[in-house]
Amino acid sequence: MKQLAVIGLGRFGRSVALTLAKMGYDVLAVDTNEEKVNDIKDSVTHAVQVDAMDEQALKALGIRNFDVVIVAIGQDIQSNILVTVMLKDMGVKRVVAKAVTELHGKVLERIGADNVVFPERDMGVRVAHALVSKNILDQINLSSDYSIVELITPEEFAGKTLEEADVRMKHGVTVLAIRRGNEVIISPGAKQVIKSGDVLVVVGRAAKLRDLEER
Amino acid sequence: MKQLAVIGLGRFGRSVALTLAKMGYDVLAVDTNEEKVNDIKDSVTHAVQVDAMDEQALKALGIRNFDVVIVAIGQDIQSNILVTVMLKDMGVKRVVAKAVTELHGKVLERIGADNVVFPERDMGVRVAHALVSKNILDQINLSSDYSIVELITPEEFAGKTLEEADVRMKHGVTVLAIRRGNEVIISPGAKQVIKSGDVLVVVGRAAKLRDLEER
Amino acid sequence: MKQLAVIGLGRFGRSVALTLAKMGYDVLAVDTNEEKVNDIKDSVTHAVQVDAMDEQALKALGIRNFDVVIVAIGQDIQSNILVTVMLKDMGVKRVVAKAVTELHGKVLERIGADNVVFPERDMGVRVAHALVSKNILDQINLSSDYSIVELITPEEFAGKTLEEADVRMKHGVTVLAIRRGNEVIISPGAKQVIKSGDVLVVVGRAAKLRDLEER
Amino acid sequence: MKQLAVIGLGRFGRSVALTLAKMGYDVLAVDTNEEKVNDIKDSVTHAVQVDAMDEQALKALGIRNFDVVIVAIGQDIQSNILVTVMLKDMGVKRVVAKAVTELHGKVLERIGADNVVFPERDMGVRVAHALVSKNILDQINLSSDYSIVELITPEEFAGKTLEEADVRMKHGVTVLAIRRGNEVIISPGAKQVIKSGDVLVVVGRAAKLRDLEER
Amino acid sequence: MKQLAVIGLGRFGRSVALTLAKMGYDVLAVDTNEEKVNDIKDSVTHAVQVDAMDEQALKALGIRNFDVVIVAIGQDIQSNILVTVMLKDMGVKRVVAKAVTELHGKVLERIGADNVVFPERDMGVRVAHALVSKNILDQINLSSDYSIVELITPEEFAGKTLEEADVRMKHGVTVLAIRRGNEVIISPGAKQVIKSGDVLVVVGRAAKLRDLEER
Amino acid sequence: MKQLAVIGLGRFGRSVALTLAKMGYDVLAVDTNEEKVNDIKDSVTHAVQVDAMDEQALKALGIRNFDVVIVAIGQDIQSNILVTVMLKDMGVKRVVAKAVTELHGKVLERIGADNVVFPERDMGVRVAHALVSKNILDQINLSSDYSIVELITPEEFAGKTLEEADVRMKHGVTVLAIRRGNEVIISPGAKQVIKSGDVLVVVGRAAKLRDLEER
Amino acid sequence: MKQLAVIGLGRFGRSVALTLAKMGYDVLAVDTNEEKVNDIKDSVTHAVQVDAMDEQALKALGIRNFDVVIVAIGQDIQSNILVTVMLKDMGVKRVVAKAVTELHGKVLERIGADNVVFPERDMGVRVAHALVSKNILDQINLSSDYSIVELITPEEFAGKTLEEADVRMKHGVTVLAIRRGNEVIISPGAKQVIKSGDVLVVVGRAAKLRDLEER
Amino acid sequence: MKQLAVIGLGRFGRSVALTLAKMGYDVLAVDTNEEKVNDIKDSVTHAVQVDAMDEQALKALGIRNFDVVIVAIGQDIQSNILVTVMLKDMGVKRVVAKAVTELHGKVLERIGADNVVFPERDMGVRVAHALVSKNILDQINLSSDYSIVELITPEEFAGKTLEEADVRMKHGVTVLAIRRGNEVIISPGAKQVIKSGDVLVVVGRAAKLRDLEER
Repeated sequence: MKQLAVIGLGRFGRSVALTLAKMGYDVLAVDTNEEKVNDIKDSVTHAVQVDAMDEQALKALGIRNFDVVIVAIGQDIQSNILVTVMLKDMGVKRVVAKAVTELHGKVLERIGADNVVFPERDMGVRVAHALVSKNILDQINLSSDYSIVELITPEEFAGKTLEEADVRMKHGVTVLAIRRGNEVIISPGAKQVIKSGDVLVVVGRAAKLRDLEER
Repeated sequence: MKQLAVIGLGRFGRSVALTLAKMGYDVLAVDTNEEKVNDIKDSVTHAVQVDAMDEQALKALGIRNFDVVIVAIGQDIQSNILVTVMLKDMGVKRVVAKAVTELHGKVLERIGADNVVFPERDMGVRVAHALVSKNILDQINLSSDYSIVELITPEEFAGKTLEEADVRMKHGVTVLAIRRGNEVIISPGAKQVIKSGDVLVVVGRAAKLRDLEER
Repeated sequence: MKQLAVIGLGRFGRSVALTLAKMGYDVLAVDTNEEKVNDIKDSVTHAVQVDAMDEQALKALGIRNFDVVIVAIGQDIQSNILVTVMLKDMGVKRVVAKAVTELHGKVLERIGADNVVFPERDMGVRVAHALVSKNILDQINLSSDYSIVELITPEEFAGKTLEEADVRMKHGVTVLAIRRGNEVIISPGAKQVIKSGDVLVVVGRAAKLRDLEER
Repeated sequence: MKQLAVIGLGRFGRSVALTLAKMGYDVLAVDTNEEKVNDIKDSVTHAVQVDAMDEQALKALGIRNFDVVIVAIGQDIQSNILVTVMLKDMGVKRVVAKAVTELHGKVLERIGADNVVFPERDMGVRVAHALVSKNILDQINLSSDYSIVELITPEEFAGKTLEEADVRMKHGVTVLAIRRGNEVIISPGAKQVIKSGDVLVVVGRAAKLRDLEER
Repeated sequence: MKQLAVIGLGRFGRSVALTLAKMGYDVLAVDTNEEKVNDIKDSVTHAVQVDAMDEQALKALGIRNFDVVIVAIGQDIQSNILVTVMLKDMGVKRVVAKAVTELHGKVLERIGADNVVFPERDMGVRVAHALVSKNILDQINLSSDYSIVELITPEEFAGKTLEEADVRMKHGVTVLAIRRGNEVIISPGAKQVIKSGDVLVVVGRAAKLRDLEER
Repeated sequence: MKQLAVIGLGRFGRSVALTLAKMGYDVLAVDTNEEKVNDIKDSVTHAVQVDAMDEQALKALGIRNFDVVIVAIGQDIQSNILVTVMLKDMGVKRVVAKAVTELHGKVLERIGADNVVFPERDMGVRVAHALVSKNILDQINLSSDYSIVELITPEEFAGKTLEEADVRMKHGVTVLAIRRGNEVIISPGAKQVIKSGDVLVVVGRAAKLRDLEER
Repeated sequence: MKQLAVIGLGRFGRSVALTLAKMGYDVLAVDTNEEKVNDIKDSVTHAVQVDAMDEQALKALGIRNFDVVIVAIGQDIQSNILVTVMLKDMGVKRVVAKAVTELHGKVLERIGADNVVFPERDMGVRVAHALVSKNILDQINLSSDYSIVELITPEEFAGKTLEEADVRMKHGVTVLAIRRGNEVIISPGAKQVIKSGDVLVVVGRAAKLRDLEER
Repeated sequence: MKQLAVIGLGRFGRSVALTLAKMGYDVLAVDTNEEKVNDIKDSVTHAVQVDAMDEQALKALGIRNFDVVIVAIGQDIQSNILVTVMLKDMGVKRVVAKAVTELHGKVLERIGADNVVFPERDMGVRVAHALVSKNILDQINLSSDYSIVELITPEEFAGKTLEEADVRMKHGVTVLAIRRGNEVIISPGAKQVIKSGDVLVVVGRAAKLRDLEER
């Protein structure tokens, strides 16, 4: 079983730690702030109050043996950078670090971070995409051109088969799956009837999808 | 064409505003901080330095005529709440507000926010899921049980057809699409050969997918 | 016997708690500040030092069983709002919250506060009314037009009967009661003599009353 | 026409100034804070940004000729005291000063304040009295024993005459007036029928009134 | 033996307390600051760390029985005023309070301080007088016109009798005493020889004395 | 005519500057704080807002040509020291510096200050001496043993001649002068009658004087 | 002629910039602080007030064409790191960065700094070496074992030839040069007489040199 | 064995203390900051947390018996000065104090510091000299004209004898020593071959050396 550590229990770090714990992983949560440690301690494997800048303390936690360490320190860029370089020097196999700006991300890459994530920026992108339509729920951008989107069935499609709705022809998109309550219909056939309330997972070019979203 | 306004140009708000602008929408970006306004002014339709707590100033911007207003104020929960209630009272059709905690989210809903988003929490969930596998790139959780994931082809599948790889049978997952460089192959057939470097979009139960991710 | 709790022991909250205790009610006084709790602890039923933002701690106090909870937090609008929503969610029957501005008051109403009070604003109104006359002591505004006022007898009325003073005819006001030392004469007759030092309780139109006050 | 000045435009001072202006008086509003001065300047006769500790500036405003000056400075007790003594030394006829604590009030009296008001304390008392009953709206405490209260008609009285309701006999209280919508019935007779929704103004001993309020 | 208390152990208060203790009086030294209390505790009768704003604590010290209480609080004018009024209300016979400005001094007098001292202002006056002459050591201003000064013998007088020096005639001043090392010659005769290094105590009009000082 | 400069216009420095100006000297007053400079500018020869740490600015004022420069900076010991050394290096003939502690005073002496004054400490000593008697007004300590004091006539002496009062014999003190209203009687004879309200200037041993003061 | 830029004008950066300018190089001095820029502007080629974190501003200065850029920012480690990475990305040939700790130095190396200097640490080492002897003036550590030191002639050598002093034999050190006033004698012969006041430049093993230094 | 104390464990003071300890001296390290004391306590003889402004505490450490005390306090100039004067008054034989500016240095000299060091300024000078050449490693400035420099062999000299390279003739400099790995060749002969990678220690006039450095 993979062992993961999250350093920095702000809103992002806390969410990472809680999600990993719910997925069944062994999670060590670390922060300098006692209150934040107490808030999470019943939901993760271990939670310790440690100043991550204190190299001896990190070593004492056996941090070098973890499979992945996420540096989720967000307010203090200096600590974020110094802790990341310290972890790589200790020999941690995979260090994932949160970046705040592009320049910060560039520093993290050069000092050896294995992955650099930009949670606020990326979430901004996601939310922006979702915002322009009331019925889009989530999406994966395959390329700058192609996306998969999860969207609530536009009213005009309700009661029609996929063929009738002629989604592929008219809209240049393909329905990959239909979620109906707890059920998921994968690669639905042309005769499949779309019901009001269905959630469609469709793939297509971004321009075509936007056309669909705005119905 | 939809008109959107983003109030609060922190990292999340800035990313929302920039993404919307890139998608071709008409975007008004608002912040009290002059520097943040200057940084974004060449990338959006309008950027103005205004204290969003100043009702007269908001009205002077014609904010009530915007299709969507995103309240992305994050540090100051009080302003976030008061601006949201003010916007709804002015008659803005759709107000999307960023929440910091569950309780904060509950307040936003009650005072009339049309959507409440939790960017750090949600990004934490996404990053956590991505972390546990080196080859997963992105995903949509259809339900607590079913997900669509975008993952790098595991080495053992390279050179095999889908049939040979027997993905569906053995792994209980379906390949919805294959991304190969800039090309996207939708609903690939059983004879389709998977190449090293292909990105697979697969759907299936979470447990099955995790098994696949960890290869 | 009613049980009441006051959260926030600033000058307003402290006065509410002390008054309720003097009236014989069972009062729980809560603040995060130890000194404020100590200052009041001998005058109320219970006084505890608790951070009202800590939901578990509030529950441990059995706050949901109180008949009325007064949220008197004044400096920190954010806490004021979040505690109010938390209390309603816990099922407290009646939550009275102190508002600082009109907008704040609007938020409190929408999130479910049963009563919203504006102590500084309302006291300002009262003091303003009292200020313009040296002899007015207190008043109730029945409508925008009619008021009941408690005023010191103008010198020119001393020694006259109500009839002689012809208060009703000439001034368009009615004397409802006379306070003479500790005695209260209710609905005094026309022959009742007014003495110097008497306090009159009169009802009438605002314009007429002002004329009387300025004597 | 009386001329009044309000020094300190916090929530209390602002409310005093606005109320006086609405009553038709000539009001000068003074604060060191430019924003607070701007917020009120369209609602009062004059509003000026002046540091009240600057004796020359106060004199230049002709403050000594005002009939009443209200010192509503609340945060800074030192300034509150020093401005009050300065105003009395300048020869202002009537200075009303806001006190924060009993001790502060004592200082204000000794240095010559003509009236000392305790808005938060007094409002706390009022709110506390109102809180213990859902139907009481306002009240005047004539003595520690007797009060006049304005209360919503208890359901059991609706449709009865005052005689039937036998308010005086049974409850030891007297109905002084009835407010029915915009109309006010003064000293109602025994045959007067009480309607649901009427507001009663009654006088009586506190203990008796409380009994009534809690119906 | 007189008992004195000094509240506030800044540089002025500390000096007052130490001087009184050296003069053999019973001195209680009070400050909120632990370090200041520790620094003086071996040099005075009692030194206690108490917040002088805490009336109960002051009473527990038996402060009302002291002959004189010096309020030497200097930084915090508000506390200085409130503690002074509190002490007078407790019945302390003589309260001496340090004032910072004329206005502050006026407040202290009105609230009942028995003496008001202005140490920085008065010391400034003394130092200024001493500055303009190298040989003046100290002085008492009897009136705006007459002073007694203690000055080093001007070189031109050394070796002369008082008569020869003709101090009284020529300079309009009278030598009251001569200090020669540890000896003091009171009301010296006309034949008394002045030696180099003698310190003269002379009385006269200010203008005449200045003439002498500048030799 | 002597030219003097005062650097630092706190309460002590301001008092020094004002006193010198009243004595008719040419005074330059310097402070970094604009408000303090404005407050004094009409009472001294010149008042300028300059940062005394800026050597060029000081030189531009021609500070080196002043007869005496008083460094009255009190809050910031570092500036006090550095400005003092700078002035001596510029060649100012006499630099008088205010010290806050003994150690500070020692530093000032070593770096070349011509005089070091301790206003708060010295004023504390004076006030302490004055405090122990209600009738003592001022004093000069000639030595640790002998003092001259100015005191209000004790009631028991009123109406007696000096001989009768037998001050010298019984009390071991000599009356050097009597101030009666604006008149000063120097070296009064034995037949001189002391009146109630006279102020006596007496010289004697400290112990004897204290005996007299406490009458 | 080489062109150099110094970013950050603290004590270290200022000294670097001034020294380079005195050596005749073309120096651009940059800081966000206006006062620091003004203090140096007459001593270097150009001095500009710019926030080095503002990439556009740096580019506008043509910083990429400088031969060497010294990042002397010391207080703010974050800016120090981000500016360094920015400069390398712009293509500056040689970037020298000041490090505060070893870890910080490691980060600077990884992000591409061409040289990393530790001024306080290195100066501490130098001063420590100098401290243990009164006569050592400066030194170069050739290896952990060998050093060149510049030291004042020990008294016992004065008047002797190098041969007589037998420095090489007895002390295992070689005299490389002798500085006598402004003259420098290089590789002095065995007959060279050492004079009191000469400064010797000697090379040898550290242990031997220490023996010499402590004479 | 010499005993040394270092007061102030900032980066400079820490480096001084550590270097002295490595050289084998008995070192006492003092700071008010607990963390800084803990960080160094295993590397020096003694490390104590003491406020150096507390004279009694310093005496209790027996500081007067140390051979050298280094005052390395850098942030707080006031403490730096006061501690220095205190140490000299206690009788410490040699006090070395760190100065921040020239003026500060002047004060330290006058109050008795035996040596004054300017670490940032001096390190700036050294770094500046080193910067202008890629191959210079370290140097000693014998006079304003003559220097000894340690430099990496310019490529054009590799493989040549000193004679062939004709360093002395052509360049006016003398090679005093050659470092080759761990070996040091002192006063090398004319036939000595220079190898690539050798480090040369040369002496000469500054202008000539610069010519050499820039090859």
